[in-house]
Amino acid sequence: MTKEVVPDIVIARLPRYLQCLNLMAKEGLHTVSSGVLAERLGTTAAQIRKDLSYFGGFGKQGSGYPIYSLIEALQEILNLDRIWQVAVVGAGDLGRALTRYQGFPRRGIEIKLLFDVDPKLVGTKVGSITIQHVDYLEKEIQHHGIKIGVLAVPAEYAQLMADRMVEAGIEGILSYAPVSLILPESVHAQHIDPVLQLQTMMYYLGED
Amino acid sequence: MTKEVVPDIVIARLPRYLQCLNLMAKEGLHTVSSGVLAERLGTTAAQIRKDLSYFGGFGKQGSGYPIYSLIEALQEILNLDRIWQVAVVGAGDLGRALTRYQGFPRRGIEIKLLFDVDPKLVGTKVGSITIQHVDYLEKEIQHHGIKIGVLAVPAEYAQLMADRMVEAGIEGILSYAPVSLILPESVHAQHIDPVLQLQTMMYYLGED
Repeated sequence: MTKEVVPDIVIARLPRYLQCLNLMAKEGLHTVSSGVLAERLGTTAAQIRKDLSYFGGFGKQGSGYPIYSLIEALQEILNLDRIWQVAVVGAGDLGRALTRYQGFPRRGIEIKLLFDVDPKLVGTKVGSITIQHVDYLEKEIQHHGIKIGVLAVPAEYAQLMADRMVEAGIEGILSYAPVSLILPESVHAQHIDPVLQLQTMMYYLGED
Repeated sequence: MTKEVVPDIVIARLPRYLQCLNLMAKEGLHTVSSGVLAERLGTTAAQIRKDLSYFGGFGKQGSGYPIYSLIEALQEILNLDRIWQVAVVGAGDLGRALTRYQGFPRRGIEIKLLFDVDPKLVGTKVGSITIQHVDYLEKEIQHHGIKIGVLAVPAEYAQLMADRMVEAGIEGILSYAPVSLILPESVHAQHIDPVLQLQTMMYYLGED
């Protein structure tokens, strides 16, 4: 079975399954039923079974999934069996928070490059990373062969910086800028916008 | 038609529709077809028509949606016709970045309270907000009648702080902590974890 047939929405759920399974492994569990996993994740057992069936059978009917081998399989499917280097553009509050975030190295993500335009910031360090001027963006990304970029710049610079990252060889962009980016089909984009998630919440809270 | 019948997944898509429509309005457009809207959003026209049909008819077959009235309708549906005050727990890099984020006030979100335990931070200011000790969390949240909390604390404190926020009357929590929170059914939770989104991306990038 080729990877092409798996819907994006299924792929997007796998990291959540993995996160939950890792937590269960930490708790000392060895097997888990799709029902229990579903309850922890706020989804249905049928959904989990269907999602995992794209990648072949894990676990036998009735005996639950073996947690450790499911973790290993998911890590392999998601290509987490390596360190991924990342370039961050924008060294403001958010860019610095991301660069210092301990959850990245723990999960195989290494912030390797950090860029900004502010002469007061260029040359200073965030953790062990020296902030470089965006003039060096293309050269540095190419030199390190980095494929993943994070956009932590104001909305008005997001498209320009995304274009430059793509030109430099970036194939996946995680953007914190509250704008839709126009990118080549081949580039995988993800957006994080807390406002959209808060607005979803407000729908429910407004009922009081 | 009561709001209860609208699936959560539909509600979660409405803020994206609104964001895109606001951008189109800025671009000077007055009407948009479901097809064009779908293309901009990376979804299908059928999906958009089905989602919006939960809230009655917008636009006539063939003539497209009137952008301004659809924006107004979505804002009303999502209860965005008011200012929502928010309490942030955790005044580290991330908490400070959120407190200073210009995208919040522009879209009706006011960070009103910011808490931390660090004595070096308590009493200092982030923008116009004075960081308060978490000891005052319950008292301050109740005093201001705040319903939305943002968790920007390390994973190990997230559940405790979530429990205290809920006890204080918080009904919606946006959590940046990379853990699943156990919350009462009545509390609406949203999670932001850049690692999960980067991992989704790695699935596709690993093919090279």
